[in-house]
Amino acid sequence: MNAPLVQITHCQEFAAAHRLHSPKLSGSENAALYGPCNNLHGHNYRFEVTVEGPVDPATGMVMNLNDLAEVMRTAVWQKVDHKNLCQDVPFLNGVITTAENLAIAFWNQISAHQARLDGAKLHRIRVVESPDNFVDYFGGAQ
Amino acid sequence: MNAPLVQITHCQEFAAAHRLHSPKLSGSENAALYGPCNNLHGHNYRFEVTVEGPVDPATGMVMNLNDLAEVMRTAVWQKVDHKNLCQDVPFLNGVITTAENLAIAFWNQISAHQARLDGAKLHRIRVVESPDNFVDYFGGAQ
Amino acid sequence: MNAPLVQITHCQEFAAAHRLHSPKLSGSENAALYGPCNNLHGHNYRFEVTVEGPVDPATGMVMNLNDLAEVMRTAVWQKVDHKNLCQDVPFLNGVITTAENLAIAFWNQISAHQARLDGAKLHRIRVVESPDNFVDYFGGAQ
Amino acid sequence: MNAPLVQITHCQEFAAAHRLHSPKLSGSENAALYGPCNNLHGHNYRFEVTVEGPVDPATGMVMNLNDLAEVMRTAVWQKVDHKNLCQDVPFLNGVITTAENLAIAFWNQISAHQARLDGAKLHRIRVVESPDNFVDYFGGAQ
Amino acid sequence: MNAPLVQITHCQEFAAAHRLHSPKLSGSENAALYGPCNNLHGHNYRFEVTVEGPVDPATGMVMNLNDLAEVMRTAVWQKVDHKNLCQDVPFLNGVITTAENLAIAFWNQISAHQARLDGAKLHRIRVVESPDNFVDYFGGAQ
Amino acid sequence: MNAPLVQITHCQEFAAAHRLHSPKLSGSENAALYGPCNNLHGHNYRFEVTVEGPVDPATGMVMNLNDLAEVMRTAVWQKVDHKNLCQDVPFLNGVITTAENLAIAFWNQISAHQARLDGAKLHRIRVVESPDNFVDYFGGAQ
Repeated sequence: MNAPLVQITHCQEFAAAHRLHSPKLSGSENAALYGPCNNLHGHNYRFEVTVEGPVDPATGMVMNLNDLAEVMRTAVWQKVDHKNLCQDVPFLNGVITTAENLAIAFWNQISAHQARLDGAKLHRIRVVESPDNFVDYFGGAQ
Repeated sequence: MNAPLVQITHCQEFAAAHRLHSPKLSGSENAALYGPCNNLHGHNYRFEVTVEGPVDPATGMVMNLNDLAEVMRTAVWQKVDHKNLCQDVPFLNGVITTAENLAIAFWNQISAHQARLDGAKLHRIRVVESPDNFVDYFGGAQ
Repeated sequence: MNAPLVQITHCQEFAAAHRLHSPKLSGSENAALYGPCNNLHGHNYRFEVTVEGPVDPATGMVMNLNDLAEVMRTAVWQKVDHKNLCQDVPFLNGVITTAENLAIAFWNQISAHQARLDGAKLHRIRVVESPDNFVDYFGGAQ
Repeated sequence: MNAPLVQITHCQEFAAAHRLHSPKLSGSENAALYGPCNNLHGHNYRFEVTVEGPVDPATGMVMNLNDLAEVMRTAVWQKVDHKNLCQDVPFLNGVITTAENLAIAFWNQISAHQARLDGAKLHRIRVVESPDNFVDYFGGAQ
Repeated sequence: MNAPLVQITHCQEFAAAHRLHSPKLSGSENAALYGPCNNLHGHNYRFEVTVEGPVDPATGMVMNLNDLAEVMRTAVWQKVDHKNLCQDVPFLNGVITTAENLAIAFWNQISAHQARLDGAKLHRIRVVESPDNFVDYFGGAQ
Repeated sequence: MNAPLVQITHCQEFAAAHRLHSPKLSGSENAALYGPCNNLHGHNYRFEVTVEGPVDPATGMVMNLNDLAEVMRTAVWQKVDHKNLCQDVPFLNGVITTAENLAIAFWNQISAHQARLDGAKLHRIRVVESPDNFVDYFGGAQ
């Protein structure tokens, strides 16, 4: 088979509170490092999940978008929407809730549902914290 | 004089945490009334201030936009950005932090600087809580 | 009582097909009047509902936003999303589906649920057909 | 007749250079008044024209949107797009190019084509200079 | 020569109707697979074309953006805007009009005009079906 | 160490005037090549800087976003905001101010501050000239 490879992306939004605070640092070190982000505040977060795969000629789809949306809802959205990311989210327990760490944690949450991605491969997680700041994680390490 | 009346609007954004909770209600009543908004969460808020006045023929301006921006920064933005609206903001002390009440409180904050509005009249405060929800307050009552 | 009057707005989106075609005109007259809009095409519509009322001091709300969203979902969204507006929507039967007529029809749909608006008054319906075209209806006539 | 009154809005964008400079002021007074806006710079401007009128039951329209767009193109867009507003635009000759004055000048340009608005009444001109700054003119004076 | 390689992207929008329906499946299978997308509906589509090439030192351009826009208009936009993608578009004849298949078909349409891309190489087609769903095609297969 | 690799992006906006004009071409050749862009005009530019690096487990960050923002402000924003890009910006002296050349020049400006990027590697510069046109530069050449 020689099927075209396409990436599909679905986006969801959630409203959450958080603060940046490292348990390895003192209060003044935290304040110096994170500035105002050391205070409890919040965001309308947007997160995008991109998966890549061949297009099934029978359906015209890489995978069913409704399935992708459902995975995102159950694996991430329901657990973070209208929550304090620093206290209410078991999968973020002990995690400093920077956008970088959220993207990595969301990757792991989505990856645990690989079987529901219908053969498509998780490609990228984007976390948009504010209109001017976002991060991308492709699953790589160095 | 017969000067054209124009409305000018400046917008600023801030990131804040809040929850909706009425001290007059029990915990279960609060949960029932506010749903997930009863949990601590947060938003990238956007607030818009509109003032109206005649255009000064010498400057082409209703008022200096830099002055309006500075009033908004000092009277509102600095006090709410990267804060928990329910605990850290003196002018919101005892206020249920719905978008409605934020708009009214911001109106009062801006009005206190009427002298710096160069003769323009405060016309509207819009508070945008999320891409799909916003409120407008024009200073009226019934 | 002297309660502040505030307007709250909730927005929803739907994807629908339509064409502009007047039964009172011939085919060529329709083509001349509506141009390419006489062809079947479609939009990601956005509609905004604004209601106005006094802020209840016990709740800080004009009305419960979840109730407004539910009225919009049942009275409009469920009936138009992923539909052909010219054939599949009973409340648009015989209506030329211009944005003007959609706004008026949505007004009537929402108004029929006035009892669920908790005393707030329907103020405006905005229908956004594309990023550069929208209409506003305030319930008035001449 | 008892026809519903609706407002329709069309938006267009143009890219232009300008600076704020009053011929009645000295160079240092201009610099103090306008700050960095006294330098030549530019914007992707967006301007919105809203007209109001009864909906024609035969067409479902307040007026033909293509006609409104064409009026905007010929009366404003063609004259300002990819231009220096301070030198290249005859209808802005001698005008300090604040957003306020642009809105007033655009109102006059559109009003001169009232006969092409099919009975609709010009209601509002909005000029959006940047994502955070815009002005509205409704044709009024004081 | 050692010319910097740059990617340039131009975006256009079109309004179209479509439904998802596979001729290889029964009516109930189509309804189950595509859900509400099996109904005729529509979108304001946005499509982005990215080409990559060295920057010509004489012009500062990878290729003339006006030429790219013209290719997009003639090869895609004119054929899909204000159309029913399932019936009115010869190059989509027999194609299930998922965003994936649209991206592939648009790639082929643009590629047929490679000679007008001034040496730049087609890099990516993005099709944005709604604010929360888009696909990317880079011309690859597996 | 096996640290996750993440890309972080910060965006800033500036308002500037420019025209496209090649000193190697005659006036009529410039007009033919660049069309209306040969006239002095302007934009609300948006530029995005993406850096890539391992996430520091002590901070949860690739690098401090405030540091990245400060590098962007001093190396680019302060030099181009409210300026005529063709005359007022030393680092653009002799450069045809296409979006391609701006992206390359901004890359060089940011690269000169590599020491302040805390070990992260400059990955991409995006320059958005208008809502429908943008360019990306990754530092490569051919």
